[in-house]
Amino acid sequence: MTLGVFDSGIGGLSVVKSLLDSKHFKEIIYFGDTARVPYGVKDENTIIRYSLEALEFFKNFEIDLLITACNTVSAYALKDLQKQAPFDVIGVVEPGILAASNALTNKNKNILIIATKATIASKAYESHLQRLHFTNITSKATSLLVPIVEEGIFEGDVLQSTLNYYFEGVESPDAIILGCTHFPLIAQAIENYFEKDVKMIHSGEAILEYLQESYDLKNSYEKTEVKFFASENPDGLKAVAKEWLEL
Amino acid sequence: MTLGVFDSGIGGLSVVKSLLDSKHFKEIIYFGDTARVPYGVKDENTIIRYSLEALEFFKNFEIDLLITACNTVSAYALKDLQKQAPFDVIGVVEPGILAASNALTNKNKNILIIATKATIASKAYESHLQRLHFTNITSKATSLLVPIVEEGIFEGDVLQSTLNYYFEGVESPDAIILGCTHFPLIAQAIENYFEKDVKMIHSGEAILEYLQESYDLKNSYEKTEVKFFASENPDGLKAVAKEWLEL
Repeated sequence: MTLGVFDSGIGGLSVVKSLLDSKHFKEIIYFGDTARVPYGVKDENTIIRYSLEALEFFKNFEIDLLITACNTVSAYALKDLQKQAPFDVIGVVEPGILAASNALTNKNKNILIIATKATIASKAYESHLQRLHFTNITSKATSLLVPIVEEGIFEGDVLQSTLNYYFEGVESPDAIILGCTHFPLIAQAIENYFEKDVKMIHSGEAILEYLQESYDLKNSYEKTEVKFFASENPDGLKAVAKEWLEL
Repeated sequence: MTLGVFDSGIGGLSVVKSLLDSKHFKEIIYFGDTARVPYGVKDENTIIRYSLEALEFFKNFEIDLLITACNTVSAYALKDLQKQAPFDVIGVVEPGILAASNALTNKNKNILIIATKATIASKAYESHLQRLHFTNITSKATSLLVPIVEEGIFEGDVLQSTLNYYFEGVESPDAIILGCTHFPLIAQAIENYFEKDVKMIHSGEAILEYLQESYDLKNSYEKTEVKFFASENPDGLKAVAKEWLEL
């Protein structure tokens, strides 16, 4: 199976990592729209327009399935992509919801969703969870955590005071949905902030679980081929990928 | 005199404020490329391409002078804009340098330049100051201060720990060049961080001073007309403008 992975920038590499580790896939084509990142502060119309432009790029390859690793794209542009794509398209919202739902048997458990402004404003996660009868949901746009991760800050005062800025007064959750591909890199600091055991929902793990349930992933490859593309500075993206993914 | 003001987003409104206060200008046409903001993390080629696209927009109006309020555009795209524009184009780097040079008579005084990654990497301010024989220059890419201002944080723990993250160990400067249009909004906090009197160089004031020296600004208008345009969500831009500029 050949996968396309689309992200607004480099964050989607955290999803690629989970897919590579599984060894189920023959090839992955990654495209990051680095010239126009970040999407999470932009408008619905702009997000849809940029996503459909990325779709044209993926049509150059023979892929079986396109994954929108970016939560903002998944929240706003998934239906438009599915309508216009000649291959299957899945986002990260539904897999994340299923992972949360599998992790929490009690519908009264407290779920915290953290994501970009645009993803939170879409209520994509919230409305899905409500349909599954979860009653105790808190949504927080934690926009600053994105540039903090991009600055390479994974611990220390800046991160701690920002976590405090967003989470002060927020009840300790039973599960946290990491609704942005940047957040797995600071998952430990987020988990430690709260004083009880928290189930962390990570898009990469959630999507792999979802694919294993939805597709016949019998094959196992010694090595998944990965090709990286970016709308600007592809060498920068490749360098980060090499480090993160240990290629 | 009718001015065009180009910025990657809303930050250039701090320049518009200084221009409005002077009452020297008949009309200002403002364009913010909000669909592709921020420029400060992007590549030279991308910044030039986006700037030339903005130039086409300004050709729709009869402007006498185009000001690139964005420091990143001023650092990378000014020459290309000047080559292709049918009107004068000035950036904010040269005016900032002149203001710093006027403020500091002693060439051994300590100047700190803070700006986005792209502006710092261009060495635009640094090389200008060196040509003027300043010898004590420190450059700092303080990228996180941009999203912090956009989050509406102008004081408190997040800002203080971020200032500390960037400035710990940096010698107290005699002057600070605010090399990003967002920074005037946190100028007071930056000034207070250092324990001596610091001359703060603000693009808006610097450019007004520069225009007063270079052009014949005899006219005085009771009210400058301002028209706002944005590549996405113009209503959002207008709302911020109304608040900041007290229109």
